[in-house]
Amino acid sequence: MNLSGRSLTDISDLSREEIVFLLTKTKSLKENSRGDLPSPRGSGKSVALLFFEPSTRTRTSFEMAAFRLGFRVLNLDATSSSAQKGETIYDTAKNVEALRPHGMVIRHSGSGIPLQISKLLKIPVINAGDGFHAHPTQALLDAFTIHEKFGKISGLNVLIVGDIAHSRVARSNISLLRMMGAKVKVCGPPTLIPPLATELGVEVTDKLDDNLGSADVVMALRMQMERQSSFQVPSLKEYTTRFGITEERLGLVKKDAIILHPGPVNRGVEIMSVVMRDPRCQVIDQVENGVLMRTVLLEEFLGAPL
Amino acid sequence: MNLSGRSLTDISDLSREEIVFLLTKTKSLKENSRGDLPSPRGSGKSVALLFFEPSTRTRTSFEMAAFRLGFRVLNLDATSSSAQKGETIYDTAKNVEALRPHGMVIRHSGSGIPLQISKLLKIPVINAGDGFHAHPTQALLDAFTIHEKFGKISGLNVLIVGDIAHSRVARSNISLLRMMGAKVKVCGPPTLIPPLATELGVEVTDKLDDNLGSADVVMALRMQMERQSSFQVPSLKEYTTRFGITEERLGLVKKDAIILHPGPVNRGVEIMSVVMRDPRCQVIDQVENGVLMRTVLLEEFLGAPL
Amino acid sequence: MNLSGRSLTDISDLSREEIVFLLTKTKSLKENSRGDLPSPRGSGKSVALLFFEPSTRTRTSFEMAAFRLGFRVLNLDATSSSAQKGETIYDTAKNVEALRPHGMVIRHSGSGIPLQISKLLKIPVINAGDGFHAHPTQALLDAFTIHEKFGKISGLNVLIVGDIAHSRVARSNISLLRMMGAKVKVCGPPTLIPPLATELGVEVTDKLDDNLGSADVVMALRMQMERQSSFQVPSLKEYTTRFGITEERLGLVKKDAIILHPGPVNRGVEIMSVVMRDPRCQVIDQVENGVLMRTVLLEEFLGAPL
Repeated sequence: MNLSGRSLTDISDLSREEIVFLLTKTKSLKENSRGDLPSPRGSGKSVALLFFEPSTRTRTSFEMAAFRLGFRVLNLDATSSSAQKGETIYDTAKNVEALRPHGMVIRHSGSGIPLQISKLLKIPVINAGDGFHAHPTQALLDAFTIHEKFGKISGLNVLIVGDIAHSRVARSNISLLRMMGAKVKVCGPPTLIPPLATELGVEVTDKLDDNLGSADVVMALRMQMERQSSFQVPSLKEYTTRFGITEERLGLVKKDAIILHPGPVNRGVEIMSVVMRDPRCQVIDQVENGVLMRTVLLEEFLGAPL
Repeated sequence: MNLSGRSLTDISDLSREEIVFLLTKTKSLKENSRGDLPSPRGSGKSVALLFFEPSTRTRTSFEMAAFRLGFRVLNLDATSSSAQKGETIYDTAKNVEALRPHGMVIRHSGSGIPLQISKLLKIPVINAGDGFHAHPTQALLDAFTIHEKFGKISGLNVLIVGDIAHSRVARSNISLLRMMGAKVKVCGPPTLIPPLATELGVEVTDKLDDNLGSADVVMALRMQMERQSSFQVPSLKEYTTRFGITEERLGLVKKDAIILHPGPVNRGVEIMSVVMRDPRCQVIDQVENGVLMRTVLLEEFLGAPL
Repeated sequence: MNLSGRSLTDISDLSREEIVFLLTKTKSLKENSRGDLPSPRGSGKSVALLFFEPSTRTRTSFEMAAFRLGFRVLNLDATSSSAQKGETIYDTAKNVEALRPHGMVIRHSGSGIPLQISKLLKIPVINAGDGFHAHPTQALLDAFTIHEKFGKISGLNVLIVGDIAHSRVARSNISLLRMMGAKVKVCGPPTLIPPLATELGVEVTDKLDDNLGSADVVMALRMQMERQSSFQVPSLKEYTTRFGITEERLGLVKKDAIILHPGPVNRGVEIMSVVMRDPRCQVIDQVENGVLMRTVLLEEFLGAPL
């Protein structure tokens, strides 16, 4: 399967077969990894991380993935005003390409920006999150975590809980999980469910307690106050009362289900501390799997030099 | 030609022969480069990037150059107050030297600081821009871009347009280009021409339209509001009307001329978008050539360890 | 001596024999180092630098140490609010561990945080400074600098001058130096001496002139206004008058004594410029020795992969 030189801006850039290929490669990497970094192969490749939004978490995950491959990492923090100095984001991207990295990882608050940039550039672009639109590498690592646990994705019941409207994680997960044959239900305050959710082929509910028991995967989303244009839940306390994964609700979760969260977790808001310690909660596994999946993605997508 | 262990704080640190040597080496690097990074030679060298002024662009160019050589990069962002904590810049530089890098790249808002620091240190210092004074590596990459196009510099007509008074890029380019035998003319609002411009051996004009037709190289400078002590042009709109490289003015530019800009470009101010797309506009080539020239500079100037 | 896989959060984590071992190894590294970086051994190891407090100085020292060992460095600047996003520091640390570095270097403004984190993690934690509590790697590099000069630590008179109460450097130095048999005296304004100083086994004085003459080591501390909850000295000028190492006081210092300072130095406050230039002042040597000691620490403490 040859992904070399292509961009990954959305789950729709991938076929079902390609997703299976990526999951299998990541599994093989994990099994053959002794937790050690391979001695850097001196591949002579480099990747530029162009982050217009701050993200220590995703950035370091890509960085560690690059380290495993012996890639050089060019960190471009474009969040500060100085980085921009009035230049357009497209000029910035063209300028970074002229430094001749083998690929570019982009995060931007504007939906669709990585796609636009990928059309302008000759090198592959990997979307590390754009606005409310997509976060395909997160969806892939989540899929890997689910597949690792159940040996399949098809037929599983996945319940995504929280602010669906502002979540690129939810959007990319819905695309990927449905493509792989999972049944996806979303649960949250009606104000935080996008109007067209049912058109995405997902069931919608605002009753968490009634739906926890049938879920194989419970995916809690982060309450991101910074992404909400106006305050759409009465209070965090109210949100937690109705949608938080609390100790009581943990009793409703299947014994062999898993609980996911893209992080960073607001403990006591989306997930209680006692839930974090439950073996079903795989938040830390997600982080570890993230490095592995991104290692595979960088290796597969970053092609020969220009 | 042995430059090893010397500092580069100004174009006047170089002889004509040394500039020719650097241009030739960069040409050879470009021709032999497949766009790929050479597999890092594990040279065991390191370079400290000590930036007292923010500059993603110049910093990453040096970083990528270091990567090509297999050098380790120590990034010292001295722009934040925490980096300084009341320490003098000279103590900071001595402290960085004590970490034992093989050379130091310095940017500072104060003219002459890199020279002063180079006198204090035993390792080579490369000036990545100091105040209104000098930016020798930019002038060298510009010279390479010009030489690559015309096969020579001597005898060419170079027109530098914009805020000459506050431009270290202009200053270093004038020094280098005149040393190499080009005829340099500067064009800008009289308030932004340094009083002694004619003493630098350059012609001065404020009539862009009358002078575009004879130029082989049109070098537009960035309008840097942040460097102007008071507002010396009535408005950006007026600046653009008189000195912007607009679509109409593009018609006056020679068919085989080139248009340069040190970046980042304020589209619509110094250069219109339509001009950016013109094949004569080599702004992106400049960025690519910058990495190559800086690769040669780091290789040549950073000598044996202390 | 096997330190591999252990954490270093305080001097009390080390035995006297282990300190001797570290000093000897650093000496050997320094003697065998030609100032050059060893060609990176491609060890395939990596270290995460998790700094909740800004520190260009200590961070770059660890970075350079990692470079010497061919370790990959994952820089996590957790000082910005974005890095935290409401996540607890313990979740942040667990998340960073999940990226699978071989060890973690932590700085935090809270006393005891690195110890708490070391209890949570499976990988070694090295304390790069926590609140007013400890800075063991600084104490080790200071001990190395002292030992290098005198060939011993036992029996030496060490005078620590300044703000003892808010100094983790003083605390760790007192622990280490007393463990190694030095006689330690502290000198500063009574408001800046911790109430229980004598219980630490050190002599206390506020008369600098009377005590300089008998000191083999004069260690001036940084006046850190940012660490003082209220202004506990009348003025910096008054502080300098009574406790600054001035030109006149230099006359009182033994000919073969050494003067240390953890940096960054506030010239004219703790140490006058003329003193900085005196050969007894080893502030720059401390920086150089810091990289060497931290190279040894990273090599010794970072064990086999998980």
